[in-house]
Amino acid sequence: MSKALHAAIAESIREQIRTGELAVGATLPSESQLCEQWNSSRGPVRQALAALRAEGVIAGGSGKPPVVRTASIPQPFDTLLSYSAWARAIGRTPGQRTLELALRPADRLTASKLGVEEGSPVVQVLRLRYLDGELTMLERATFVERVGRLLFDFDCDSGSMWAYLQSRGIGFATASHIIDAVGADPVDSVHLEVAEGAPLLRQQRTARTADGEVVEYHDDRYRPESISFSLENTLDVRTTLMRNARS
Amino acid sequence: MSKALHAAIAESIREQIRTGELAVGATLPSESQLCEQWNSSRGPVRQALAALRAEGVIAGGSGKPPVVRTASIPQPFDTLLSYSAWARAIGRTPGQRTLELALRPADRLTASKLGVEEGSPVVQVLRLRYLDGELTMLERATFVERVGRLLFDFDCDSGSMWAYLQSRGIGFATASHIIDAVGADPVDSVHLEVAEGAPLLRQQRTARTADGEVVEYHDDRYRPESISFSLENTLDVRTTLMRNARS
Repeated sequence: MSKALHAAIAESIREQIRTGELAVGATLPSESQLCEQWNSSRGPVRQALAALRAEGVIAGGSGKPPVVRTASIPQPFDTLLSYSAWARAIGRTPGQRTLELALRPADRLTASKLGVEEGSPVVQVLRLRYLDGELTMLERATFVERVGRLLFDFDCDSGSMWAYLQSRGIGFATASHIIDAVGADPVDSVHLEVAEGAPLLRQQRTARTADGEVVEYHDDRYRPESISFSLENTLDVRTTLMRNARS
Repeated sequence: MSKALHAAIAESIREQIRTGELAVGATLPSESQLCEQWNSSRGPVRQALAALRAEGVIAGGSGKPPVVRTASIPQPFDTLLSYSAWARAIGRTPGQRTLELALRPADRLTASKLGVEEGSPVVQVLRLRYLDGELTMLERATFVERVGRLLFDFDCDSGSMWAYLQSRGIGFATASHIIDAVGADPVDSVHLEVAEGAPLLRQQRTARTADGEVVEYHDDRYRPESISFSLENTLDVRTTLMRNARS
């Protein structure tokens, strides 16, 4: 209950920032005003403000009234995972064309990413993704068998596999993302209509259920100059984006 | 004072996770134990836990005891900005070789990134960066004149420009990062010793002082297969990494 309240307070403030009702530089209502407004004790209000501070959305606190620092509001979980959810969140129309849906033995890379035995059956989907009808990405998705088999009852051209799998009870809870650059391989070259070796931004991700089971591994490659990732950070807030050196 | 205390509590817990004293899945001490341990009231302890929760480092709360979710601790501000600070944080040795330090008129791109007039003087640094002696990155840094001029008294081969500028009173407070992939241009090709068009991971960033003045713009290009960026995210924590479509 207390959890719902602090989350609701934080979300309401995010919404006011998103809509511009609270502009960058604006002072938030005081803790007491928020308590009164939400009929809340100090605890949930402070938790909500701490979350917004940790996200870098507000600055100040400890005596100083908090002010809005940025209008770029951190994204919910599904916006970074689901291409469809992301496209709609930015007011664009997602599209997809399925090139292949296959049940096949896992190769070494996918096996290690999914934590299954090499050679055990997995379901792989190769899809082109569009934004307002324009080709942007080649998606290679691999699912552990029990999850992937659900896709045989789904039209992968119709929309989000992510949303469909959730509707079938697969609860995605955590994910890891790796972002790097790769040269287009022959498959990329044919489908993304670029020269072999062309610079592609790649987003690899593994998604897990709440009990830690890895259920999918994606290798998404974006056409040159179609997509970027961005991040705001500030001196007093930690950032969850890590820079990694290959060993 | 209260701010220092909640920050100290959070940092101490991060340190225990970093060193493995608190392993993934381990239960944190209860709020009352933390209050006793830190001789603190509930407020700072809850703020510390809220920050760790917002960072995705711990899960649970509101009745359930918080547990450690991941050992990948979010990075402080300078680790994403300063190559030297980052290299040392991961136990590697940063290196650099300066190719050019120049005062010249801003071209259109740099002028727009720095928010100065096209043609007004800026200071540009072209440097190669190394990790344990291995070439990893070509750094193009542009500074507004008043800041860049400080570098004429600095040996850019000796280490972090970032640390030097801070020691000269330039207070970096916020930054924006954009990550994408580009093909190596002729300058990249010569200095990074790769073919023209080779896929390079690029990190562009602008850094600002506390009063919002943009003081530097970087375009850092990493050699193929040298560096990646990664991120963990979870259903109940927002992520500050945004995916962007080029218009």
